[in-house]
Amino acid sequence: MTVACVQTSPTLGAVDANLDAVETAVLGADADLIVLPELFASGYFFESTEQAAALAEEVPGGPTVARLEAWAAATGATIVAGLPERDGDALYNSAVIANSNGWVGTYRKTHLYYEETLHFRPGEGGFRVWTVTDRNRRSYRLGVMVCFDWFFPESARTLALGGADVIAHPSNLVLPHCPAAMPIRALENGVFTATANRVGTETNGRESLTFVGQSRICSPRAEVLATAPVEGEAVIRAEIDPCEARTTALNPYNDRVTDRRPDLYHR
Amino acid sequence: MTVACVQTSPTLGAVDANLDAVETAVLGADADLIVLPELFASGYFFESTEQAAALAEEVPGGPTVARLEAWAAATGATIVAGLPERDGDALYNSAVIANSNGWVGTYRKTHLYYEETLHFRPGEGGFRVWTVTDRNRRSYRLGVMVCFDWFFPESARTLALGGADVIAHPSNLVLPHCPAAMPIRALENGVFTATANRVGTETNGRESLTFVGQSRICSPRAEVLATAPVEGEAVIRAEIDPCEARTTALNPYNDRVTDRRPDLYHR
Repeated sequence: MTVACVQTSPTLGAVDANLDAVETAVLGADADLIVLPELFASGYFFESTEQAAALAEEVPGGPTVARLEAWAAATGATIVAGLPERDGDALYNSAVIANSNGWVGTYRKTHLYYEETLHFRPGEGGFRVWTVTDRNRRSYRLGVMVCFDWFFPESARTLALGGADVIAHPSNLVLPHCPAAMPIRALENGVFTATANRVGTETNGRESLTFVGQSRICSPRAEVLATAPVEGEAVIRAEIDPCEARTTALNPYNDRVTDRRPDLYHR
Repeated sequence: MTVACVQTSPTLGAVDANLDAVETAVLGADADLIVLPELFASGYFFESTEQAAALAEEVPGGPTVARLEAWAAATGATIVAGLPERDGDALYNSAVIANSNGWVGTYRKTHLYYEETLHFRPGEGGFRVWTVTDRNRRSYRLGVMVCFDWFFPESARTLALGGADVIAHPSNLVLPHCPAAMPIRALENGVFTATANRVGTETNGRESLTFVGQSRICSPRAEVLATAPVEGEAVIRAEIDPCEARTTALNPYNDRVTDRRPDLYHR
């Protein structure tokens, strides 16, 4: 199957324009799984919780999910993308999964970064894995984490032990280390990872953040299968076989899963 | 304080010669903490369990620990080094800590790699942290893991959550990924790491293994403070402040420890 990550350069608050700006890239990605960045249509560095709330959407039902559903229907792809979710009074930094049947599920970001903690509630649902299919109706297991979740090795670990073959990782990375870390996350967990990051600089009126690009797709053997530049919009693609993630043996004597000693690990 | 890693090239089975070969490097390392590789005096790729047993020593009491104690007394350093440990009928792939008072403690490797599983029992004591002092009698917290333990993020995690400021990591690495992983292990856990690896090729009579060198010292900010070449013996040194490992805050909103959500993690 083919995985694609779309590296974007949104404008804070311009949801419709941001959706329009990535549409051509998404419709032309020719992939079974398409990953878009965290908060890809809203922008990231909100000036206030009021601004975040004004941009937040119900899931499903809001304009961003509607567009994702239309793109999935048009392409046959499964699409994972980040958006600010409103649920009653609560806001979450969420990633949604859509396919040709429409909305599939939502992951609410567990580990909020920096001023996100002022605007969003942390997700309480934990790390979930969904069974989805490629365009040839072959099923695979898809886990989702968002941006700063990568920093905590337990995030990808929990998804892998939950059966994920592929981890979709919508991101708005500002710390420089994640691109180097993702091959290690893929290796230690025996999964494919697909990090879709954004580029550009945003200000909240008091401070600026610059995003580090370098969207990348990594293999269980720590290979970087595709990578995007530090600057500029891009679509990266890689052919993967999700079955590679189902072989937990490393050699005749070692196994990523059964060698674990949870009785000896700090929880 | 100063941390040194001694990258060695031992000959399988030649314990006395291997001890003699590294003595000058150890006595000249001028460091508060000196880390030597896994099984640094015995060699690694045993032809049989009988050979491993013949080379194994009681701890303390055997010739390797005696030499480590002498080196520690001569230098004032704390020394961490790997050796095959005999305890009754059981063999362990262990790392010992020695300082000017003599033997301090032993860590028995948890995650055995490849044919080690044929010769050694896995350690059942888990990951321990010792309070030790530098040559100015300032105390710091020292964790120990051995080689393949790095592959399981829970190893360094357990040491860090147990209070380690510095993780000594005697190794005989054959997989290529650990050098790139160690800055990530240091970052995600907010600790210093000191990986002492060996070089050269060994055969067990049926197969050969080549070790990847690249001993390295890493900081909680993912910096590689010092690194050794892929080939050749070397001593690498770095000045570190263990107090840097006691600041768990990443920014005003995030903390490496309190942001963790163990209730949402797979054990």
